[in-house]
Amino acid sequence: MSSQEAVESALAARRARINDAIERGLPLKRPERLYEAAKHLLDAGGKRLRPTVLLLAGEALADVPPLSADYHEFPAEGGSVDLMAAAVSIEIVQSFTLIHDDIMDDDTMRRGVPAVHEAYDLEMAILSGDTLYSKAFENMLETGATAERSVRALSELASTCTQICEGQAIDIDFESRGAVSPDEYLEMVELKTAVLYGAAASTPAIVLGRDDAVDPLYGYGLDIGRAFQIQDDLLDLTTATETLGKQRGSDLVEGKQTLITVHARDNGVDVDGLVPADTVAGVTDDQIDAAVAKLEDAGSIQYARETARELIESGKRNLEILPENEPRALLEGIADYLIEREY
Amino acid sequence: MSSQEAVESALAARRARINDAIERGLPLKRPERLYEAAKHLLDAGGKRLRPTVLLLAGEALADVPPLSADYHEFPAEGGSVDLMAAAVSIEIVQSFTLIHDDIMDDDTMRRGVPAVHEAYDLEMAILSGDTLYSKAFENMLETGATAERSVRALSELASTCTQICEGQAIDIDFESRGAVSPDEYLEMVELKTAVLYGAAASTPAIVLGRDDAVDPLYGYGLDIGRAFQIQDDLLDLTTATETLGKQRGSDLVEGKQTLITVHARDNGVDVDGLVPADTVAGVTDDQIDAAVAKLEDAGSIQYARETARELIESGKRNLEILPENEPRALLEGIADYLIEREY
Repeated sequence: MSSQEAVESALAARRARINDAIERGLPLKRPERLYEAAKHLLDAGGKRLRPTVLLLAGEALADVPPLSADYHEFPAEGGSVDLMAAAVSIEIVQSFTLIHDDIMDDDTMRRGVPAVHEAYDLEMAILSGDTLYSKAFENMLETGATAERSVRALSELASTCTQICEGQAIDIDFESRGAVSPDEYLEMVELKTAVLYGAAASTPAIVLGRDDAVDPLYGYGLDIGRAFQIQDDLLDLTTATETLGKQRGSDLVEGKQTLITVHARDNGVDVDGLVPADTVAGVTDDQIDAAVAKLEDAGSIQYARETARELIESGKRNLEILPENEPRALLEGIADYLIEREY
Repeated sequence: MSSQEAVESALAARRARINDAIERGLPLKRPERLYEAAKHLLDAGGKRLRPTVLLLAGEALADVPPLSADYHEFPAEGGSVDLMAAAVSIEIVQSFTLIHDDIMDDDTMRRGVPAVHEAYDLEMAILSGDTLYSKAFENMLETGATAERSVRALSELASTCTQICEGQAIDIDFESRGAVSPDEYLEMVELKTAVLYGAAASTPAIVLGRDDAVDPLYGYGLDIGRAFQIQDDLLDLTTATETLGKQRGSDLVEGKQTLITVHARDNGVDVDGLVPADTVAGVTDDQIDAAVAKLEDAGSIQYARETARELIESGKRNLEILPENEPRALLEGIADYLIEREY
């Protein structure tokens, strides 16, 4: 089995358990329309990357064979903890941010289904996101960890949510700015995307009481999270519209800042004139191909690929504090997978 | 000094301290536009009723003279706590819900200033509300209470936020429904409005480790919070537009369910035909006067007044577990004030 196959198998094996736990952690209760809206995107699928990272980090720390321990009664010093409750919390945060981001970005589709504000309405999209927000905290309170560890996990969760909002605000600000430096871009991505990977990877160390591993695992999450976003930006240019689930090159049309366009602008490319179309509906694949060719010529695509690769290698080095076991190998594999995936 | 004057004096004395603490608990940092939007309504004023209830409940429990103890180093068994951090947390929750509710209700003015989605835009209103949401948890983590008490306070905060969302969803659902029973209305108000008063009143008991007082103080908050909302509904009909800061009778024009209209419909009043105008801009004071007269005739205004009064008396009875001291008298006074206020 190749490393990528091993990762996909590890994701699939945990996905079913995570989905069961989401059902339990987010029961459909009154008012039902609110909870249906809250579950709309969670039910539509998703790879469950972040909760899988969390579960694997727990297995690596506990040095147990993959899937051998009950995630709900996971071995910890001083009594077992419900690691899955923390995993559900992290996935709920991700889902809440998607719902609100889709409103802000006016995106109509997500995971192959209409965005919540399309399937329901603006009110229900705001409110279901807000409901998920507190549900994330409620689930993180259910790990059964000692009060000290719970407080620390909740503190990390709260600051993570604040940072995600800050990142989104910076990203919105970028839309009305011309030049953005690579460092500014990477700071935005760190806040908007990577801190949630940091929380996913380090929360097991917190709730299991493994203080020594909190910072390295957080660093792993931060590095792979940044690389994940850069890969997302690359895929927008290189993956077919059908596979992507949205128009290829839509970021270029919408004038979104990415590490690729930031580098291109720095290297004399007229980024705003790369695509003649103003709307995603009006762009052709030939126009995107021509734009991508210019970005290739400027070395911008290569630059983004190399930056992502360096971040992945840095992320993997953070795992060296872990015992050399199969879950650690899978965390390394997930790091590679994030920049090798094609959708 | 009358009871009402004593309450207003107690509110004023604490308001300045609460405002200072909000400045410290919500510093203006990068990205500045996000934090400016988040502070927009907090800076616009507000009575600070909920944090004042929290501080007074702490003083009543500790049996100290009003304002004699430092709220940041408040005497508690096993070490002092920062009661003000909890008060700031509760006010931040209130502010976050106002920002998002104004979007959902399409209200353009709040506290005499444009709503955040008007002063900024929809994106910034969603995002600044989301930022306040996590800031509320961050502040509640800063009380310095023991980990066990902090966990309990955070748990109450999370479930309170969930319930507020549920209440808002039920309220939205009411708009498309005809008959709503008084019990259904009161359940909605309990969730949407009263649980935050419950959290405000009981959080001091949690962080001070006074388990015996948690439920009674929560009950006090729940009762006065429901009465507060009923009084808000009454004021919409009886207070002059200038004092109210929005068109008198706007709830009637917008077809909002209130305890008054719920009672009127049950008693044969054609509530939907009470006001001929469809829009708030198109209604006259004479039309509102005529509608109010019909509601008076049906006994609906009297019914709402009596229900609010009964809730206030029930709320005050919950305070009997407290020592008979000045802060307790002020909590009783605040209960009365909530239904005696004219704006």
